[in-house]
Amino acid sequence: MRSRKTAQADGVGSAWPDGELQRLPVGTLQLDSGAKLPDVVLGYETWGALNEDASNAVLVLHALTGSTHVSRGSSHEDGWWEPLVGPGRAIDTDEMFVVAPNIVGGCYGTTGPSSPAPDGAPWGSRFPFVTLRDSVTAEAQLADALGIGQWHTVVGGSMGGARALEWAAMFPDRVQRCICIAACVASTAEQIAFAQAQLLAIRQDPDFAGGDYYDGVSPAAGLGLARRIAHITYRSEPDLGARFGRLPQGSEEPLAHDDGERGRYQVESYLDYQAGKLAGRFDANSYIALTEALTSHDLTRGRGSIAEIFTGTGIEFVIAAVSSDRLYFPAESERLVKELPPDVSVRFEMIDSPFGHDAFLIEAGQLADIVR
Amino acid sequence: MRSRKTAQADGVGSAWPDGELQRLPVGTLQLDSGAKLPDVVLGYETWGALNEDASNAVLVLHALTGSTHVSRGSSHEDGWWEPLVGPGRAIDTDEMFVVAPNIVGGCYGTTGPSSPAPDGAPWGSRFPFVTLRDSVTAEAQLADALGIGQWHTVVGGSMGGARALEWAAMFPDRVQRCICIAACVASTAEQIAFAQAQLLAIRQDPDFAGGDYYDGVSPAAGLGLARRIAHITYRSEPDLGARFGRLPQGSEEPLAHDDGERGRYQVESYLDYQAGKLAGRFDANSYIALTEALTSHDLTRGRGSIAEIFTGTGIEFVIAAVSSDRLYFPAESERLVKELPPDVSVRFEMIDSPFGHDAFLIEAGQLADIVR
Repeated sequence: MRSRKTAQADGVGSAWPDGELQRLPVGTLQLDSGAKLPDVVLGYETWGALNEDASNAVLVLHALTGSTHVSRGSSHEDGWWEPLVGPGRAIDTDEMFVVAPNIVGGCYGTTGPSSPAPDGAPWGSRFPFVTLRDSVTAEAQLADALGIGQWHTVVGGSMGGARALEWAAMFPDRVQRCICIAACVASTAEQIAFAQAQLLAIRQDPDFAGGDYYDGVSPAAGLGLARRIAHITYRSEPDLGARFGRLPQGSEEPLAHDDGERGRYQVESYLDYQAGKLAGRFDANSYIALTEALTSHDLTRGRGSIAEIFTGTGIEFVIAAVSSDRLYFPAESERLVKELPPDVSVRFEMIDSPFGHDAFLIEAGQLADIVR
Repeated sequence: MRSRKTAQADGVGSAWPDGELQRLPVGTLQLDSGAKLPDVVLGYETWGALNEDASNAVLVLHALTGSTHVSRGSSHEDGWWEPLVGPGRAIDTDEMFVVAPNIVGGCYGTTGPSSPAPDGAPWGSRFPFVTLRDSVTAEAQLADALGIGQWHTVVGGSMGGARALEWAAMFPDRVQRCICIAACVASTAEQIAFAQAQLLAIRQDPDFAGGDYYDGVSPAAGLGLARRIAHITYRSEPDLGARFGRLPQGSEEPLAHDDGERGRYQVESYLDYQAGKLAGRFDANSYIALTEALTSHDLTRGRGSIAEIFTGTGIEFVIAAVSSDRLYFPAESERLVKELPPDVSVRFEMIDSPFGHDAFLIEAGQLADIVR
């Protein structure tokens, strides 16, 4: 293996520091829907160095509101998979060249609704419908630009897991291993239902202004409500019960209504915090675009069965589920395992956790065992 | 047993037809919070006739958005427990005298936020915080007025089950049997979390106007969103999956976004329907008041343990849970069964159903076996 310095000098992001945003223009994107999205830029970060035969590249795909910032690298901010990705960690950036692109439609460096359209104004309500497949199309151009013919591993959790499956289906020759954590073959009716509630929460915020709010106030209340709904589904009843129960928040009195509004329970304060945190860092139109992209997710659409899609590909699959996941039920992951063709390698892993879906971000030890 | 006609002639609702709304003024209600609610009227319906020793009275308590209309009676509209309550049915109105009051804070005949305050204008935002206990206090006056010293049975599902438990705790001498279906001892952290999202959905609707919308437009969009969130929790993933899967609604195209908004999936159309139906029949302020009443539900508050509350009462309990309930988990019902003191009779019943929480309205056969 060549040294990091030498290897990076060959690549697009040569000499670029680990864990800092880079941007690759990929031109006009032919969308899954038939429409075209012009002037697309892909935001991404990298860690480590590509080796001589380009055999050590790992693609890490983020979830719905995730970003390119998987690990600290040379930045000052921890990444969303910090315990898993870095020097000496399960995804060892001393050994592997790790790439994390922001999804098309997002707001972390890649073209999305808040990006300028050709007329210079933000896309806003004019941003076209995108699917997870559109992002894979763009990410393949990023792989080309980085000199990566085949990924050693494509890995992600939740929507990132769905993106990993899409990579495997669209470019089976370019995916050696596919690790899909807490995701499923197709968004379920219940996921669509919860998504609808979240989209309405945003769209019914008067500040949303039909999606063209960039010269006004952001629809923080609507986005915050969407996040609250989502966050409950990311956790589990036992988790919330054990952490908060019926306790009041600080000195607030949930049974006192003297001034009209009552005091809060701890769990309400916790969700207020989660809501505010997301509203402060995420674009509401991106939330809508990506939620609709995820809702559209159906690996089999236009392709036939799971067995038909993957027969003869030789991809090594690792499918992991979370025992307490009440949004991406383990049964869905097990169904995928059963439907994969007999000629591909597949390993099923159950993450034993009380935290629900979010265990894919939390259970560092078990995740490390899975991806190592 | 005396004939229906004779018996009814003795009671408050004498000669009043079965299944039609009656109203009993109960004066000023001393609330659980310490405040007072003046001029309270209790709406209720009855079926059948009270027998001579007043030993055949059954109190049926409705859930969050339920009403007094449990069974058709002489009306033209089916009740919400139609298959269970009526002549010859499990709760046999040829044999029993059935009473169903609307909860305090509701909008089906009992004083609630849409009722006129002493100044003649609707209470609106001024309506005080009420708890499930307040309604039991008022309902005890109804029992007095009807000449019912002790209920043969108090029965309810969901919030109705919680109300039944409150009855047993507040007036153990007046409750012979308590049937509690798909309810729990105290609202859980997750239930509080889902409730918060629903309350915000309503309060963030600009038409809500802080609760004083009665001279304007009703906050139908907010109430509809609250209902969508709630309805998902009332069902189950397998139920929604089996009924709707990823099917589009009619000829709508969920992947086509030509005019901005995409077509709907069936499950979205279903939830739109549920939202519209509730918004057309329910008051948003009542939804808030009753959701907060339910959130406040904690049978043990100020009373000690379940064992302490019920020791020596001699009440016969039937505690039923729904196998697929993801809002009122069966484990909560089982916990209640375990905590009841050894000297009371208790039977636990599991309703085996894929429908989730709403099975307490749907599984007529199993419910009949439980209450018969």
